[in-house]
Amino acid sequence: MKKVQLLIEEIKQEIEKQSFPETPKNLYKPLSYFMTLGGKRMRPVLCLLAEKLFNPGEKNALNAALAIEFFHNFTLIHDDIMDDAPLRRGKPTVHELYDTSSAILSGDGLMIIAYEELFKGKYSHEILELFNRTAIEVCEGQRMDMDFEERSSVQTAEYLEMIRLKTAVLLGASLKIGALIGRAEEKDADLLYDFGEKIGIAFQIQDDLLDCFGNEKIGKRIGGDILARKKTFLMLELLQKAAAKDKFKLEEVYASNNSKTVVSTVLEMYDQYGIKEHTENLRDEFYEQAIISLNRVSLSKEQKQSLYALAEFLIQRDY
Amino acid sequence: MKKVQLLIEEIKQEIEKQSFPETPKNLYKPLSYFMTLGGKRMRPVLCLLAEKLFNPGEKNALNAALAIEFFHNFTLIHDDIMDDAPLRRGKPTVHELYDTSSAILSGDGLMIIAYEELFKGKYSHEILELFNRTAIEVCEGQRMDMDFEERSSVQTAEYLEMIRLKTAVLLGASLKIGALIGRAEEKDADLLYDFGEKIGIAFQIQDDLLDCFGNEKIGKRIGGDILARKKTFLMLELLQKAAAKDKFKLEEVYASNNSKTVVSTVLEMYDQYGIKEHTENLRDEFYEQAIISLNRVSLSKEQKQSLYALAEFLIQRDY
Repeated sequence: MKKVQLLIEEIKQEIEKQSFPETPKNLYKPLSYFMTLGGKRMRPVLCLLAEKLFNPGEKNALNAALAIEFFHNFTLIHDDIMDDAPLRRGKPTVHELYDTSSAILSGDGLMIIAYEELFKGKYSHEILELFNRTAIEVCEGQRMDMDFEERSSVQTAEYLEMIRLKTAVLLGASLKIGALIGRAEEKDADLLYDFGEKIGIAFQIQDDLLDCFGNEKIGKRIGGDILARKKTFLMLELLQKAAAKDKFKLEEVYASNNSKTVVSTVLEMYDQYGIKEHTENLRDEFYEQAIISLNRVSLSKEQKQSLYALAEFLIQRDY
Repeated sequence: MKKVQLLIEEIKQEIEKQSFPETPKNLYKPLSYFMTLGGKRMRPVLCLLAEKLFNPGEKNALNAALAIEFFHNFTLIHDDIMDDAPLRRGKPTVHELYDTSSAILSGDGLMIIAYEELFKGKYSHEILELFNRTAIEVCEGQRMDMDFEERSSVQTAEYLEMIRLKTAVLLGASLKIGALIGRAEEKDADLLYDFGEKIGIAFQIQDDLLDCFGNEKIGKRIGGDILARKKTFLMLELLQKAAAKDKFKLEEVYASNNSKTVVSTVLEMYDQYGIKEHTENLRDEFYEQAIISLNRVSLSKEQKQSLYALAEFLIQRDY
């Protein structure tokens, strides 16, 4: 993980170094504010790491890595409007600090800046097209997520497809783009895409688990998703499996508005129906698939060590 | 104009032929609805026309022309949210027909589709960069426009810079991109950019004039901008020139809320201060500058005939 930590530092410094034009101030200030909010910077790290795997001597992936991070942040600015979220990483969201119009337009601006950064790299059309296909898939994922909130019933298979599009494909693309810039063979680049995509899905499932069974270390309030009645993987699985009388009980307890009872009842049902175990198994399945793809990349185990470490780090099993 | 009419028909058919994915329906239906609302399709026509000027034998500019039109429509979808506009071309805007979140996300999607179309053309990095620089300039123009509405005073020079960014640069870029695809020399491509930019500014000034002095043929209610107290070129010019007592009178008449008196008083002041004449002169100046640039493009007058005709058509002088 040492190498990864160094890369994380490197990309964080690069992002801090970025300067945006001064005027019009109301276009560039909101987006530059948002870029300072931080985050794990996982996507650009994956991109740089993938280049280094195949071509340690060159550093051509930086533009792509920044482009991906800008794109990701653009989606967050707009998602926050759509989700009416007041906070992001403990700080006011752009539409809260400024206003909705500013958040829309600054998001648009950041997206165009992402392409500007991408074009600076003079990459191949294959890379441009992959970036773009991924970008539209992320929008599709966000759309499905919003649609699900309106729907009374959602299948877990649909949910998995939603998180694949909304989150996982961009992780896959970050790796594949980095690999292609490092002149990896197509087959290896595809295996890395697959690795990133599967890890991304495992990561999202883990995220749902952490909400129910995490500890304070994570900093999230246990049961936040349960109280918000979010359609997490566990909740959808429960709704698919629960007997009619338990579904009825669920409605009753939500109607009671007693937070403590809501959380404890839902957790009991997760236990009763084996939801936790089933979800953990599914997470592990995606994790294993990711590792199998990584194993097949035609480099030595040692060369791939940082990716194995990163995968482990992303899916911390000890709640 | 015959050649131009044919091209307009051609691009309209191309746009009608475009099909978007079926699902997620709530992502693609709103943007495909918006694309059917029509419009002059002036930007893609300029792009195709510019290619034809230099390379009549090939048809490589279609992807770029479509990309530009998609981009333009993306900006309209988002602008309509920011301006809280209920109608566009007599039909409900996207956020009215669907909702704001749908309009944000479908706008984002349409923008990514614009890049997808652009990438299909396998154009040079010069073209990609010009497209992108223009895209960010259009956002800057929209930002200035919104800022102006909040400000108590705006200089006409700032206003001209705003319409240059918000409208004119995309007309210039449409022509330059088409010219570059047609393998024009850099110098000619730049002259066409300049022609488009200047015509764009003249067109916007004309638009402001038409609101005050147009006739019903145009379909717009005379004085709409005056009643909405929009900061048009004429109004800004008046505020710069008017004596204190007339500014006071203006405030009074707006406070009276009598539409007829508001329009007639403003029109009288435009007359009194020579605003109409001054604005017409400025429009003509930009028009002349546009024509000078077009004259200098190294092709025969005959070859450039359709562009002269188009310029004339855009700036119809007879109100």
